[in-house]
Amino acid sequence: LDNASTTQLRTEVIEEITRVLGSRFGNPSSTHSFGRSARTVVETARKTIASLINAEAREIIFTSGGTEADNLAIRGAVSGLGVKRIITARTEHHAVLTTVEALASEGIQVEYIKLLPGGYPDMEDLERLLQEPLTTLVSLMHVNNETGVVFDIEKIGQLCRAYDAYFHSDTVQSVGKITLNLKNTPVDFISASAHKFHGSKGVGFLYVRKGNNLNATITGGEQEKGLRAGTEAVHQIAGMAKALQISCEKMNEESAYISGLKAYLLEELNSAFPRVKINGAIYGQPELFYNIVNVLLPLPEEKTAMILFHLDIKGVAVSRGSACQSGSIRPSHVLKEMLSDDDLKKPSLRISLSHYNTKEDIDQLIAALKPL
Amino acid sequence: LDNASTTQLRTEVIEEITRVLGSRFGNPSSTHSFGRSARTVVETARKTIASLINAEAREIIFTSGGTEADNLAIRGAVSGLGVKRIITARTEHHAVLTTVEALASEGIQVEYIKLLPGGYPDMEDLERLLQEPLTTLVSLMHVNNETGVVFDIEKIGQLCRAYDAYFHSDTVQSVGKITLNLKNTPVDFISASAHKFHGSKGVGFLYVRKGNNLNATITGGEQEKGLRAGTEAVHQIAGMAKALQISCEKMNEESAYISGLKAYLLEELNSAFPRVKINGAIYGQPELFYNIVNVLLPLPEEKTAMILFHLDIKGVAVSRGSACQSGSIRPSHVLKEMLSDDDLKKPSLRISLSHYNTKEDIDQLIAALKPL
Repeated sequence: LDNASTTQLRTEVIEEITRVLGSRFGNPSSTHSFGRSARTVVETARKTIASLINAEAREIIFTSGGTEADNLAIRGAVSGLGVKRIITARTEHHAVLTTVEALASEGIQVEYIKLLPGGYPDMEDLERLLQEPLTTLVSLMHVNNETGVVFDIEKIGQLCRAYDAYFHSDTVQSVGKITLNLKNTPVDFISASAHKFHGSKGVGFLYVRKGNNLNATITGGEQEKGLRAGTEAVHQIAGMAKALQISCEKMNEESAYISGLKAYLLEELNSAFPRVKINGAIYGQPELFYNIVNVLLPLPEEKTAMILFHLDIKGVAVSRGSACQSGSIRPSHVLKEMLSDDDLKKPSLRISLSHYNTKEDIDQLIAALKPL
Repeated sequence: LDNASTTQLRTEVIEEITRVLGSRFGNPSSTHSFGRSARTVVETARKTIASLINAEAREIIFTSGGTEADNLAIRGAVSGLGVKRIITARTEHHAVLTTVEALASEGIQVEYIKLLPGGYPDMEDLERLLQEPLTTLVSLMHVNNETGVVFDIEKIGQLCRAYDAYFHSDTVQSVGKITLNLKNTPVDFISASAHKFHGSKGVGFLYVRKGNNLNATITGGEQEKGLRAGTEAVHQIAGMAKALQISCEKMNEESAYISGLKAYLLEELNSAFPRVKINGAIYGQPELFYNIVNVLLPLPEEKTAMILFHLDIKGVAVSRGSACQSGSIRPSHVLKEMLSDDDLKKPSLRISLSHYNTKEDIDQLIAALKPL
């Protein structure tokens, strides 16, 4: 029940990776047949991925994962596009936040938009900030990894266009789970990570709308049109394309299944804990994303420190926020923006689902929570 | 015959990667059992790799490959250690050269050491440069990827120590092929890439001698002690450890076999082309590395453009230099430092061997070259 952290690989993805490792081990930059054979794998994967999000192949830059993609978009825009100011939110993933903070210390102006209750963006505040005439990058994620709060990237993108700002969205939690059509979405850069959609760890991509000339953050050879040096991880890229392809093919079926599972989870939680609150569920705001539920349990404060440990012993894997901070007892930086100090001390859990989960998994969670 | 560019994976490595993908897919940062199980894989791999180069586990930082490791060492030393000057050589890999050039444009002082005939370092020039009292990083590779020229990293390291300079060595061509003992070698950082020693692409490591506090180049979560953000590629790391372990276990046997193959290659080349020259082979200098031969063929200039194409048609994979520039007809930046303008126009070939090669491969190369 911790699929926002990482996912089980699809069998077909493992098979694809294994196949490429065994037979396509050439260096895609080599001109001989071994190299060309590997190059074909990489470019076929690029076309597959591009077509699945309605982008062009040349707009896909392969990276070692979502964090590197976020870094490339943000640092690459500062050094390549002359960005002087970054507008973001305090609920972003650390791949964005830490990078933005580092750039702030190097003299880049950083603004954090106001958040409405539940962690939604205050669009009027965003518009107010955009009015300052300074080359600006807006970095706001699509689906929050801790709460499932969905930002309307269409609307944000239109606002960015109107004020001539670049727009990056960390779409790590939505790629492969919802249809993205980049021809119609006013976004300049999106980041993706294969292991969030049943691919392997250590590979992702950055979509870079054509015409936006980022600077590389990892320099060396001329791979990826000079935007990302280093021999391409051919097998990883092939596995990512396979994972995205299957996720898109099965999206209707699997998202319906997961949505049903989430409805069951909420029913069972409400019946076991009538005073449970769903973090981020705010009347009048868009529905939370279909595979993530962040719940504030009506349990005493002293349960907070041991709840994950207790659940783990019972064989239940959930988290308190992003995996990067799992070990920490500090409250999540995302919930901090949304909850009162009192509520922040109580145990909140992030439960995140995939099509590999079953009702039995949820029954097991509820059964493990009840004794508390 | 292009193993300096990339290598065929060992079957055991593919098996290890496949095993981890299937059964250890947790996020190593998660505290629950899935996470801990993945963490164990990562930390076991770290210990294995450390012990094989006589380092400490905490001195190994996993990266997405050799290029990223070079970037982390160099950029990380500039921002983390206050390095104001970099001393390097014009025969380095582009992962170092391009990075150093980028830093030069940001105000870092860059010096290129004089090279002796064959591309060997002029140690007196290095010592002269080191005398300037400025916080300095020396970045000089161990085995040149194009010529097999070996730099004495022991001697260079001692000089760096004497003048209080940091020393980074791109050891991408030597890790897994020669015994490295980092307890006894005065080097602060070395870079490695798994796919050069029969591991997979997209994973490598940087050795960071304890006490040297680099800054991260990819920022975000606290992975790799804050030095490299992003979910660890568990299967890739496990595969790299397996690859290095087998390479070290079989090093004596396989290096003897490859050395024999190289001797046979040189014999056959000399007999077919009595006026062949070995680039980098200079009387009084150390022997060239045992798996790389860069030959200047006594063929007319007009053969230069088509020679790789001709060999490829005959099923022979060799290269003219590093894979990153395979497609280019510009002369190699390494050979440019070593050859006369006339020789530079003639065809040079890099032939690089692994234990998967046979005498038949060499016979096939010679047979394909003869008609020219």
